[in-house]
Parts: sequence; C-alpha cells; structure tokens
Amino acid sequence: MTTRTSLTIVLAAGEGTRMRSSLPKVLHPVAGRPLLAHVLAAAPHGADDKLAVVIGPDHQAVADETKRIRPDAETFVQSERLGTAHAVLAAKQAIVRGADDLLIAFGDTPLISAETFVRLREPLRNGSALVVLGFRAADPTGYGRLVVEGDQLAAIREQADASADELKITLCNAGVMAIDGRIALDVLERIGNANKKGEYYLTDAVGIMRERGLRASVIETDEDEVRGINTKAQLAEAEAVMQTRLRQAAMTAGVTLISPETIHLAADTRFGKDVTIEQFVVIGPGVSIADGAVIHSFSHIVGASVGSNASVGPYARLRPGTSLGDGAKIGNFVETKAARIDAGAKVNHLTYIGDAHIGEGANIGAGTITCNYDGFNKHRTEIGAGAFIGSNSSLVAPIKIGVGAYVGSGSVITKNVPDDSLAVERNDQTVRVGWAKRFRETSARARKPKTS
Amino acid sequence: MTTRTSLTIVLAAGEGTRMRSSLPKVLHPVAGRPLLAHVLAAAPHGADDKLAVVIGPDHQAVADETKRIRPDAETFVQSERLGTAHAVLAAKQAIVRGADDLLIAFGDTPLISAETFVRLREPLRNGSALVVLGFRAADPTGYGRLVVEGDQLAAIREQADASADELKITLCNAGVMAIDGRIALDVLERIGNANKKGEYYLTDAVGIMRERGLRASVIETDEDEVRGINTKAQLAEAEAVMQTRLRQAAMTAGVTLISPETIHLAADTRFGKDVTIEQFVVIGPGVSIADGAVIHSFSHIVGASVGSNASVGPYARLRPGTSLGDGAKIGNFVETKAARIDAGAKVNHLTYIGDAHIGEGANIGAGTITCNYDGFNKHRTEIGAGAFIGSNSSLVAPIKIGVGAYVGSGSVITKNVPDDSLAVERNDQTVRVGWAKRFRETSARARKPKTS
Amino acid sequence: MTTRTSLTIVLAAGEGTRMRSSLPKVLHPVAGRPLLAHVLAAAPHGADDKLAVVIGPDHQAVADETKRIRPDAETFVQSERLGTAHAVLAAKQAIVRGADDLLIAFGDTPLISAETFVRLREPLRNGSALVVLGFRAADPTGYGRLVVEGDQLAAIREQADASADELKITLCNAGVMAIDGRIALDVLERIGNANKKGEYYLTDAVGIMRERGLRASVIETDEDEVRGINTKAQLAEAEAVMQTRLRQAAMTAGVTLISPETIHLAADTRFGKDVTIEQFVVIGPGVSIADGAVIHSFSHIVGASVGSNASVGPYARLRPGTSLGDGAKIGNFVETKAARIDAGAKVNHLTYIGDAHIGEGANIGAGTITCNYDGFNKHRTEIGAGAFIGSNSSLVAPIKIGVGAYVGSGSVITKNVPDDSLAVERNDQTVRVGWAKRFRETSARARKPKTS
Repeated sequence: MTTRTSLTIVLAAGEGTRMRSSLPKVLHPVAGRPLLAHVLAAAPHGADDKLAVVIGPDHQAVADETKRIRPDAETFVQSERLGTAHAVLAAKQAIVRGADDLLIAFGDTPLISAETFVRLREPLRNGSALVVLGFRAADPTGYGRLVVEGDQLAAIREQADASADELKITLCNAGVMAIDGRIALDVLERIGNANKKGEYYLTDAVGIMRERGLRASVIETDEDEVRGINTKAQLAEAEAVMQTRLRQAAMTAGVTLISPETIHLAADTRFGKDVTIEQFVVIGPGVSIADGAVIHSFSHIVGASVGSNASVGPYARLRPGTSLGDGAKIGNFVETKAARIDAGAKVNHLTYIGDAHIGEGANIGAGTITCNYDGFNKHRTEIGAGAFIGSNSSLVAPIKIGVGAYVGSGSVITKNVPDDSLAVERNDQTVRVGWAKRFRETSARARKPKTS
Repeated sequence: MTTRTSLTIVLAAGEGTRMRSSLPKVLHPVAGRPLLAHVLAAAPHGADDKLAVVIGPDHQAVADETKRIRPDAETFVQSERLGTAHAVLAAKQAIVRGADDLLIAFGDTPLISAETFVRLREPLRNGSALVVLGFRAADPTGYGRLVVEGDQLAAIREQADASADELKITLCNAGVMAIDGRIALDVLERIGNANKKGEYYLTDAVGIMRERGLRASVIETDEDEVRGINTKAQLAEAEAVMQTRLRQAAMTAGVTLISPETIHLAADTRFGKDVTIEQFVVIGPGVSIADGAVIHSFSHIVGASVGSNASVGPYARLRPGTSLGDGAKIGNFVETKAARIDAGAKVNHLTYIGDAHIGEGANIGAGTITCNYDGFNKHRTEIGAGAFIGSNSSLVAPIKIGVGAYVGSGSVITKNVPDDSLAVERNDQTVRVGWAKRFRETSARARKPKTS
Repeated sequence: MTTRTSLTIVLAAGEGTRMRSSLPKVLHPVAGRPLLAHVLAAAPHGADDKLAVVIGPDHQAVADETKRIRPDAETFVQSERLGTAHAVLAAKQAIVRGADDLLIAFGDTPLISAETFVRLREPLRNGSALVVLGFRAADPTGYGRLVVEGDQLAAIREQADASADELKITLCNAGVMAIDGRIALDVLERIGNANKKGEYYLTDAVGIMRERGLRASVIETDEDEVRGINTKAQLAEAEAVMQTRLRQAAMTAGVTLISPETIHLAADTRFGKDVTIEQFVVIGPGVSIADGAVIHSFSHIVGASVGSNASVGPYARLRPGTSLGDGAKIGNFVETKAARIDAGAKVNHLTYIGDAHIGEGANIGAGTITCNYDGFNKHRTEIGAGAFIGSNSSLVAPIKIGVGAYVGSGSVITKNVPDDSLAVERNDQTVRVGWAKRFRETSARARKPKTS
C-alpha cells in the first residue's frame, strides 16, 4: 500500500460575532492553545500532507498563528462570505496542485482527533469518491440529516427541506469531508448557488457525486468531537471536554491527580513516572514534569521544566524559562522566571527569582528578591552552588554570589561576593529602652478612628 | 394603562434553627450578599412600590440589613410564630395604608427573579383577586398541591389532607402570592386558626376567595427559583444555582471565563467588553472590570475597580477601595487595599500597597511594603508618576515619593523624597573572606537533628 | 448479650501494578490518609478486637503504616500470590489464637464503613456460620453473583461459570466476609485449588459450609462502599466520593461551606460551631477549627489548630505545628510552621513564621521573616505579648523580642530586645537630588530590548 498524499483545507474565516470579542474566533484558546492550533495538530502532517487555511480578510493574526504552528501551511483569504464551497475554493491555488485526498475541516472544532482524519480517508482507498463525517445528535434539530441507503450516503437533507421521516434521522452532518483528489476541484466548481441565500454549499457535493454514479459514504464519530465553537459558553464546554480527556490520559499514564477535576492541564503537558499533582493546579503550555516530582496545591506553571523528584508549591508560580533540577524545591509564594535552578537547590518562601541561575544545593532564604530590573533593562543574577542567601536579602543584578558563599539576612548585595565568603550589608542594632511604652501612651491619647 | 402601586411583604422572621448558626437565616450570603438582599432586589421597587419586611424578635441585624438595601422599607416584628397569615398581619400597619397589589414573598428564597414578581401581578389586572406562585415539583411529597379547575385555582391541598388523586398532582404551592389590595386586609383577617396546630395559614385565602365568588389563579415558575433555604446544604445548592446563572450571563455578555465552573462571581459584578477571567478566581461584592482587562488565576477581588486592559494576578488580592487605572498591572502575591493605582503603573510581585496612591506609570519593585500602620493609626503613602521603587523597600507612611523619583533596593524610607531624586537607606557591603567555609565546618560538627 | 471477640484480617498484599506507581497500592492516599488507614479505621477496634494485615513481600512501608495507625496490629507477609484464601492463611498464626468472629476485608476499599462491619457480624450471632457482603451492581459483568435461596446464600457464581439466569443476578460479591471463629480455620484449610489457575479462593467457603449443613447469609451494602481501587482514575473517584461525604457531614454539623465542591477536607478534620470556609480551601490531616473561625479562600492547612473566632487567609498556609489562639488573624501570603500564635495576635501579610511563639495581641508587620535556619540548624523566635514588629523586618533566631517591644521597619534584629523597648537596625536616608532624572536619560539611550 503506497502512501496517499493529502491536502487539508481548514476553514477559519468565520467572524465569530457571537463570541462578542475582538479576537478572531479561531484564536480563542482551549487547554492553552488556540482552537485552530488543535485542528492543525489533528490534521494529517506527514511529509506528503499539505495544509491550507482559509482566513477572513482582516485576520492577519490567524495567518501568523498558522505559520507559527505549521510553517509549511499556506493561508488564503476569503474576501466575501458566500458559503462553505466558496470558502474552500478560496484555496483553489492549493487544490490545483493536486493531492490524492482532499480533506475539508473547520478551524472552530478543537476536539477533532487525528484518528478521525485517518478514518475519514479510508473509504477513499476503497472506492468512495466522497466521505462525510457524521455524528448521532442527542437533539438533531437544526442539523443537516445524513440520508443513508445501504452503505452509501444518498443525501444531506437540511432541516428546512426534510420530510417527516427524514426529520427522525439522528445521524447528522458534521461538515468535515474527504473528497477524491482527482475529481475534487471539478466537483467543487460544479456546485451552484441556486438557493434562497444565493450561497455555495459543500453539501451539494453529495448530489453531484450521485449524478455521476460515484460512491459517497459516511464515517461516524462522537458528537463531542465535532461540536463547533460559536459562543463563550461553547468555548467553556470545549475546555471542559478537553480537560477531562487530558486528565484521563494523565491518570492512565500513572500520574496521580488528587481531585483531577481541580487540575488544569495544557494540551502539550508532558509527565514522567510517579508524578503527583495536588488540588487546584494550573498548568499552561510548554511544561514537562519529570519522574517522581510533586506539584502541590495552588501552583501555576507555564513554560517550565520540573526535574525528577522536585517539589513545587503550594502557591508556586513557575513562569516561562524556569528549569528546575532534580530534587529542587520551590516553596510557597515564590515566583520564578527565566531561572535555572540546579539540583537540590531550595527556594522555599516568599521569593522572586528572575533572570537567574542558582547553583546546585544552594539555599535561598525567605523574602529574597533578585532585583533584575532597573527601570530600563533586565540583568542577571548568578548564585553559586551551595550558597546560602539569608532571608529578606536583595540581590541587585547584575551580580554574582560565589560558590559556598553566605549572605547575611536583610542585606542589599550590590557587589559580587567571592566563593566561601560572607557578605553582609547591615548597621548596628540600636535600642531605645522604654520608647515603645511611651509611644503607646502618646498614640493611645491621639488615636484616630480606625479605617480597617 | 396606569401604573399599579404595590406593597411587598417579605416574611423573614424564621429562626432557621436547622442552619445551626447564630446568624439569622436570611443574612446568610449567596453570591456575596444575604438571602434577604436577593429577595429585596427582585421585589418591585419603582416609585409606587412599597416594601415591608417581617422580622423575628431579636433580629435587629435583619432590620439593619433591610435599611441598608432599601432605605424606604419598613420592618415589623413578629413576636409570636402563629403561621404565615399571622406573620403577614404583623405588617398590618403597612397594609392599611393601601396599595393596588399586595405581594407576599419569603426572605429565604434568594433565587426568585424580578420577572416572576411582574408575572405574578399580571392576573390582578385581568380580574383575579388572588394569584399563587406554583412550580412543578420533581418530587411533590410534602408540598401543598395546587388543585386547578379550568383556568382557576380551586384549592391548595396540604399533603395530609390530599386524596389519592390529588397526591398525584405535581403542581405545588411556592408560598408566594399576590392579592388584590382592595380586599387583601379583609381576607387576611378572615383567616382563622381552627386547625390542629392552631395557626393562621395564608393558604386559607384561596377558600375565602372562592366563597366570595372571586377568581384565584396560578402562575408557574421553575422549582429552582422558589427553593427555600433551611440548611447549610441548601444554602450551598442555592450558591451553585446562582453561580451558574451569573457565569452564563457573563459569558453571554462576551466575558471569556476559562473553566467557568472554577470562577465565583458576585451578584453585582460588572464587566466591560473582552474581559478574560482565568481559572480559580473569586470575585466578591462591589467589583467592576473594564474592557480588555484580564484577571489571572487564583485572584481574589472585593470592592475594587479594574481599569481597561489592566492585568491582575495570578495570586493578586484586591481589597476594598482598590482602583486600578487603564493598563495597570498587579502581579503575584500582591495585596492592595484603599489604593488608587494609576494608568500603566506596575506592582508586580510580593507587595503590600495599603492606603496609598501610586501615580501613572510608576514601577513598584518586588517585596515593597507600604508601612501604613504604626500600631495605632493608618497613614497614607503617595508615590509620584513615573517613580521607581527598588525591591524590598519599606515606605514608612505618612510619606511622599516624588514624581520620577527612585528608591534604592532594600531602603527604609522615612522622609519624603523630592521629584527626580534618588533616595537610599543602606550601609556599605562588608565581606569576610572564607567565613562561610569556616561556618560550615563548625556547624557541621555541631549539627542538631533537623526537625523539618 | 456478651461482647464477641473479633479478628479482622485485612488483605493488603496486592502489587497494584495498574496504579503504575512505585508506592504500594494501599498507601496511596484518599482524603489525606492511605487507603489502608481508612479500612483499619473502619474495622472493629474495641478491646476485644484483634487485627492482622497481610502484606506483600517487599512492603515494609505497609507494615510501618499499619503499626502507626494500629500499634496492636500484627502483619504477615504473603510471599506467593496463590489466591484470596491463601492470603488469609498467611495470618494463620493469628487465626489459631481464636476469636468469636473472623472478618476478612481488603486494604484497597477505603470507603467501607464501621457500620458495615457491625452489620456483617450480626448474622453470626443468629446462627449463620458465614456472612458475605453483597452489593447491587449497576453493571454486574465480571463480578461473582450471589445466588440466594430463601434467606440463605446458596453459592457465589463467577462470571465464567454462571448460567444465563444467574448472569441476570445483580447482587454481587464484595469479597468481604465474616466467618464463625470456631470453624474458620478448618474451613479455610479445606479450600482446595483444583481450578484452572491452581489458586485458593475464599468464595469456595460457601460450598464447604453448605456441605456441612451450615448457614451462609448475605448482608447488602452500597456499591460505592466496596469499590476497590486499582487505577489512578479509581483512586480519584474514591477521593470524590469521600470528599462528598465529608462535606455533607460538615454542613449537617452546621459548618458553612461556601461552594462545598471547592473545599477539600481530610478524614479527621474537626470543626466547632459556626465555622465558615470559603471557596478553594485545602485541609490536610490533623486539623481542628474552633467555634466561629473563618477560613478564607485559597488557604492550605495541615496539622494545625485554629482557635475560636480566628481568621485565616485568604492565601494562608498553616503548616504542621501551627496553633492559633482565639481571635488570632493570619492574613494573605503568610506561612506558619511549628508556630504558636496566641490570642488576638495578627500576622496579616507576606510573612514567614517558623519555629516561633508569638504572644497575645502582638502585631507582625508585612514582610516579616523569622530567620529560623542558618543552613544547618533551626532556631526559635519568641515574640512577647503586645509586641509590634515593623514591616520587612528579619528576626534572626535564636532571638527574643520582649513584651510590648517595638521593632522598626526593615530592621535585621540579631540581639534580644528588652520589654517595652524600640529596636532599630537602619542607616540614615540619603538623597541625591536629580539623580533619577540623569539615570533615566542615560539608561534610555543605552536601552536594550526588553525580554519580559
């Protein structure tokens, strides 16, 4: 069996006015990535698979996102909205170049799977000229019904045109299609607009196939998979379905999710063995968590790698560019950004580590701040292996704390500290005996009403 | 059609012993406001609408809350508990003054809507003397059944008195009523207590109307809307229903809620366009969020206004009196209280801003604390536009940092800083070479068992 | 009626390979304690009740956990896995010693209740020699069916051996059993392994009883209660069921849970009256919360006691060894560990209190750190009653702050502070007029591209 080439055309030109948002519809995110990106990830993408995305006139952002995900993809602008077949023909230039299978998909159905595209193409190998993706609708009202005769698709009947018997059909048209590439362009161009709205409908392809004596068939899938997103509520529903999938997959792979319904994953989250994630954790794109690591409650992780047996949180925020070594520990109310934190290092409490490298086994005291920003530029902090930074210290970058060095609590460190040395910035402690008593007495007399 | 006047009597005298709480039942909150407040908000409140609340003998707090929400409302104490009709007559003084429509509602049904009160009054315009609110009960056991004949209400039959056929009726009495104001007092006073418990029941009004040849009718509503709250579990269920409503309304208005089931809103939350709220956010009363603002995960906001395109969180706590200008940014582990933070200002990490004004575009470094409290009084901090406060600084209020001024990291600032100046409070950094190595060697010898 | 003695044998030797974890299956936690611990807590544990746990060969950790929970329990190693009856006989030494009732339970069914064990033993008092725990399965496929004749159990039929009629039986075998102690050993030793797998099955006990003319009976329970945990997904489902139980029980006892579905409790959490818990709270093992206390959103509490009318959070993390006095207040972004915080003391913001005692009514300013760790040992901090610690202070332990003493903001305190005194560690504030303006001008020229 030789490999068949494919061209997938993703229709993504919808305005999405019901989203009530200035962001193009297909760029709204589900599980940390745009709707469109999910569809592009599911579409065939071997060496022999081409991709075209049809976008709306002012949607350069959609084109940019397409290029970011699939640099090989072409984008085409649909300048007028004259129906689905018209939208597909916006990519005529790509269709002309030819492919064994022409696939038509939608940029607003993020739950569609790669496996469905594989199944959709199979009948084309076996004599079908057109394959339509169908689903059993819980409530078919409003959908086009798939009229099946024997093993063939006889027609797609819109709600308005359906007979009483046809209205009882629950197998509905998901819109997604595969067409034999040899005849695709010819069939698409044959579709007319002799209907009420004067638009060109892809569904007419079924009749054209039948007239020519070609086979049309149906592949069924789950309703969830093909639900289009048109409103913020539907976006939220898709998020819920996707999260359920991601959680199930993680648990099947052996990840312990304590109360999975409270844990939010991204589509690209990667897990090692024996990972545990506690309640109320948000994981954004670009995160990998290695064997035996524990993510405690209320943690927020984006663009970070967590080393094996590392411990994160509760209340830890790992921002992009964070890389934790094996057994590293990030504790509560700690933020890291562009920070490499080597094996066994500890940043336990109330700390900001940005643009920094912390050496193996170093201990960063509570309340430590890497002062990486001077109002204009960002600067780097280097902390040597085994160093100990006292609590409430401020490390004014660019700065280098030596291997095994020690910084006294509350110090503002502005000059590099040599290895194995102690650096302190502090004054003598002065005491005024009885001052507090006098202050209380004076203040109590002068007390203003408390505001909070 | 002239406007009809109304008097709504809200019965709120219940002890709520099943709540197992010292707080009067109707003051328990749902979506950030007391049960009673929801009912008062739904009751008619035009210029011609009066309101009376019947409260329990020791419930001054309920009277206070009533006044707070509807200063025009009267409260009446029901000193003995002798049934619903007796409770209504506690407000006789208000009834005597007269109104076209007398409405009777309950302080423990927070989900009732204004629209239901409107619908309840309609039949009074069309010849009915009494309108009862009914609902189709999933399980009618225990509820009074509404016996309907034609388009009229023939009787309200209590469970104990119902025939086998009547027990099959699923249309039940919600308790809420509208009575023609011209006859209301007369009917209420006609209700007797010749029953087992010797109490006066509102439901007897139906029979009295029928005897007089007056029409009684039924308006139906959803069971959810009229569920009374008697236990903590029911309180939680009402919260869930209310949150679902608030989330749906927000999404319909175009707000992006990432995983809406994790976002908690208040009944009065106001949103601009293109607002995004991420997972795990709690919004309390008195919050407005302007166009394009983003609320990141794990944020907690009460009594605050968020400017357009502002960014809040993750892990930001905005307390009452916080006002964020356009494009302002509040980052992680930051608390603000009584703080005006002007356009473009940034408070990114681990900071407390209380009783303060931060000028446009100022940058507040990580770990900054406005020391607003001296143990007796609160004092204000003023930070000028474009100022830069170095990390881990302490601003001892009352204090004024000038426009464009710069505070060195780790400084304790006790005196005003002039515009465009640098203020530093710091000592020289001292270094003791080799000290850390010696300390490690000594300490390792003397090491005690670790406790954590 | 004299007390009957019991021996409960808990089978906990399973490898749990489907958990895909190196942790023995029965040590995975639900509601903050291991599966096994839940079963041990439910098993009879009066003075006349013995306990034996059968563990896998390399599962010393299971033996340790058993001892921790029930120091009186014996553990026995099952070295080969030859079926349930073989596993029970691993504890033969315990069975030989005798008990009126022999109970057999499973270490991976954490939802079983003490009441079920009580019910299971009752028929033994009334002439039954064997009692099997059954449940009505929603889908019985794969379970052993309980074939009941009259009030007796006739047989346990495995799926493979069942007739068409028997397959329709929905009453299934939960595995849990009670056997008359006088005959238990004899019956167990009579069980053979003449079956396909060559294993010894407990279910054969039914046939042996019947042959001897002894009564076998069935006690029914809910399917949820006897669900075994074999996968991470099932572990999560058990957690969900357990949390629902714990939340319901708390609400019934009068605890206000704002959105209970977002509140996670431990099996041993204790509540006083009129406690309120807001959304998104995680409570781990060993927590008690006294009357009138409020736990605000995003709090995380383990091994801590919260005094009456105390206020915790939002974003407070109370770690083990924390004890809050009446009316104490722990605010946002505060971590406490091994900390006694007396009545009325306040720790409101961004603070770490570890290994410390804070006296009555003391006020700890924002950003305060108890520097309890020197890289080798932990040291204690004592803060006297009524003391006031200024913001951003570092208290270098071991240290003692006197009663009514006052520490100036931003101080590093290394020496004890006498009662009623003021201690400050600070330098003079210096100002360089115009510096910030010049810095801005220079920096703007030299500006590098921003990275974040």
